Amino acid sequence: MATEAKATNIVWHDHTVSKEEREKKNGHKGCTIWLTGLSGSGKSTVANMLEDGLRQRGVRSYVLDGDNVRHGLNKDLGFSPDDRTENIRRIGEVAALFSDAGILNITAFISPYRADRDTARACAKEGSFLEIFVDCDLDECERRDPKGLYKKARAGEIPEFTGISAPYEAPDKAELVVNTTKQTAAETSAEILAYLEANGYLDA
Amino acid sequence: MATEAKATNIVWHDHTVSKEEREKKNGHKGCTIWLTGLSGSGKSTVANMLEDGLRQRGVRSYVLDGDNVRHGLNKDLGFSPDDRTENIRRIGEVAALFSDAGILNITAFISPYRADRDTARACAKEGSFLEIFVDCDLDECERRDPKGLYKKARAGEIPEFTGISAPYEAPDKAELVVNTTKQTAAETSAEILAYLEANGYLDA
Repeated sequence: MATEAKATNIVWHDHTVSKEEREKKNGHKGCTIWLTGLSGSGKSTVANMLEDGLRQRGVRSYVLDGDNVRHGLNKDLGFSPDDRTENIRRIGEVAALFSDAGILNITAFISPYRADRDTARACAKEGSFLEIFVDCDLDECERRDPKGLYKKARAGEIPEFTGISAPYEAPDKAELVVNTTKQTAAETSAEILAYLEANGYLDA
Repeated sequence: MATEAKATNIVWHDHTVSKEEREKKNGHKGCTIWLTGLSGSGKSTVANMLEDGLRQRGVRSYVLDGDNVRHGLNKDLGFSPDDRTENIRRIGEVAALFSDAGILNITAFISPYRADRDTARACAKEGSFLEIFVDCDLDECERRDPKGLYKKARAGEIPEFTGISAPYEAPDKAELVVNTTKQTAAETSAEILAYLEANGYLDA
């Protein structure tokens, strides 16, 4: 069989493929773009637009967000402080696996606690983790309220809601701060893309 | 700045990249090769050799195994039945994320319970999960004992050791059964590679 003949042409080495080899093949870095900010600040919209921009440049990217994590890997977790910490810990570990696989991954979670974000950063190899603060005024987030969550939180229907009844600790060492009160998601995505390009993340 | 000029050339679409689009770009399927079998059956060796063979064909692959999962994402879990179930549940979810990202991912875990492997399969899209039974006689695994674990298990130093003091439920619906008592890891990797090729997994 042709398939078997091909398979036997391979010289087998018992070793894993390195991150550097994957990056060289893909033509860009494997790293985590960690977006953090209030609910309604635009993290998911920015993440998806950024991924679209990356796709147009041939970058292999992947978005980790509530849609594919909260309903899957972390469906056993709620929103208590302990569960939020475990939620972010797992996402940090998975993001690090994606980086190791040579994928430019973008995470879009509120991730309100500084210590938890630091834990996620600690999972990553040096230089493979970019914390980006998606800064948006609470008033503006509440005005937008795309999922009606602020309204419910104000009515006491959602306990421990970040910004209302649970804290948000703004980053003190983010690689980049983008302001989504003042600029659109498209402008913000473009700003992040320009940052990635200027800092060598889109080169191998 | 050139980088900003390039960024503004992008027409932004707020949508995620589809699995199909990723597969087309990569030239192969995004799917999970789920290896299951006793400790010492050769899962990790086969996984790494298979990845090497895939690399030589330009396939984007990634191995999830004890080295990068048990010490990271699942470091909070032990080997009790409940913890084994949660271990495999999380790995199944992460493998599905990798498949969705267009990566041909290989998992190398004992995964002794049939129900847990079915849970992992259920995370995947139809046709994106291949269960491969790495079948090796217990006597042979114990003779090899690459990590000295069987010796410790026989001495009662490791509780709930699969095959000795905990059950291994052989698959009843594996897509492929490979026998590592009778053939080498290189032959086994070649057999799996040939299977993937013959069944269209290495085409987009």
